[in-house]
Amino acid sequence: MAMATLRNAYEPPQTGLAARQAIRRNSHAGPTSGLAPGYVQANLAILPHALAEDFLRFCQLNPKPCPLIGVGAPGDWRLPALAEDLDIRTDLPRYRVWRDGKAVDEPHDLLRWWRDDLVTFAIGCSFSFEQALLEGGIELRHMTCDCTVPMYRTSLATTAAGPFSGPLVVSMRPMTPANAIRAVQITTRFPSVHGAPVHLGKPELIGIADIAKPDWGDAVPIHDDEIPVFWACGVTPQSVIMAVQPEFCITHYPGAMLVTDRRNTEFAIM
Amino acid sequence: MAMATLRNAYEPPQTGLAARQAIRRNSHAGPTSGLAPGYVQANLAILPHALAEDFLRFCQLNPKPCPLIGVGAPGDWRLPALAEDLDIRTDLPRYRVWRDGKAVDEPHDLLRWWRDDLVTFAIGCSFSFEQALLEGGIELRHMTCDCTVPMYRTSLATTAAGPFSGPLVVSMRPMTPANAIRAVQITTRFPSVHGAPVHLGKPELIGIADIAKPDWGDAVPIHDDEIPVFWACGVTPQSVIMAVQPEFCITHYPGAMLVTDRRNTEFAIM
Repeated sequence: MAMATLRNAYEPPQTGLAARQAIRRNSHAGPTSGLAPGYVQANLAILPHALAEDFLRFCQLNPKPCPLIGVGAPGDWRLPALAEDLDIRTDLPRYRVWRDGKAVDEPHDLLRWWRDDLVTFAIGCSFSFEQALLEGGIELRHMTCDCTVPMYRTSLATTAAGPFSGPLVVSMRPMTPANAIRAVQITTRFPSVHGAPVHLGKPELIGIADIAKPDWGDAVPIHDDEIPVFWACGVTPQSVIMAVQPEFCITHYPGAMLVTDRRNTEFAIM
Repeated sequence: MAMATLRNAYEPPQTGLAARQAIRRNSHAGPTSGLAPGYVQANLAILPHALAEDFLRFCQLNPKPCPLIGVGAPGDWRLPALAEDLDIRTDLPRYRVWRDGKAVDEPHDLLRWWRDDLVTFAIGCSFSFEQALLEGGIELRHMTCDCTVPMYRTSLATTAAGPFSGPLVVSMRPMTPANAIRAVQITTRFPSVHGAPVHLGKPELIGIADIAKPDWGDAVPIHDDEIPVFWACGVTPQSVIMAVQPEFCITHYPGAMLVTDRRNTEFAIM
């Protein structure tokens, strides 16, 4: 028994359920990267019911930046399609609570913030396709540099729904052209976690003036034999929600994602 | 009956079999482009048995430029896997006969040239994936310009087999980045007709000094919002064979391909 406790203290949880249980009992409070390898992690957005229908429509109109993998019923903290025994109020390491577009709290649970009109949205994230790229032998520069993937606001508009509208945000990974072609093939298999790139080569064509100055994350070097490859990014829905300045909403704290019971490989369409 | 004869004179054959029969009775002697829409057409190479084994191995080692879709037995003019009632000696509109690397005849049939040691190779051609690209709504610039696709000798080496070796030859089609990504998806489905691109963006990375000066075919304009996309090209095996200067060989006359009974859609792997 002592051995088992020691093992738990030093090894990251190996399943989505184990990860959520560790988080729920406060034995894991940091980023979820590396937890439960192979299990799908998701971006979280929680909105009042009054905004939820428009946001749901926004996601369905913009599946590449907003690949919706789970939606809760109003007031319901479960998402049975993604995880058994899930309590969205306690099972992420940390949250951000927003009022009128301003962050007002960064709690480790939502017990004091939960309301009966809140609707939970789980949106696929790039962790899943990045695992597939790594398994395909493709280097991810931001991992090599141990920094955050560079993200850019583009001149491409999302399709508006109610109050929700704004530019597409993309993440960028430099690759040789041969790896870029392979990456299109690999990520095409994962439409529910952003899928194929939306652009490659010339950044200026999508309104990126200076590739060395990302709007979020960190700049990474692009070698002479590489081109930048751009994927629709989960920061898009976050930035679109913030532009609306909803009276109340909740997101995950950056890097502290929802860990699900679904495996990345389940999300491959072929 | 008179009506039927008139119709045949003015409408291109609609099946591979009808196309070959028209060619065999000399009622079609020109290019095969546009004949039997939807049916696979193939590059032809006919080599003496002494070279055939090495060439077969060369094709298997270099499947992107040399996607072998049919091989005959020595002396056999049939390819039952590709077409019923095929006589490779009469069923192409025109051939080129080579001795020691020099073209010595451009006959409409091979009856006086056939030998018992000849082995027939049918190699997939870009017509099939181009049809899929067009059906995907992607413009093909050389078709818009009504010219031959531009082709380039690259600095990428093929994998040698016996005497066969040499640079990869590629064809180039300019596209917007979004269409380039879609084109990767579409052509990935067709590995037996060259498959996915081998390169995109920066031509200098594969040894192309001046994109406006193709080694074969015609230069086409590349617009400011486009990148060049490169596919392995069936000219590769031709140029590799010519470099060997075999004592005897036969190829199709440019544009006068083997029309098969297989449909392009059969060659899609998913």
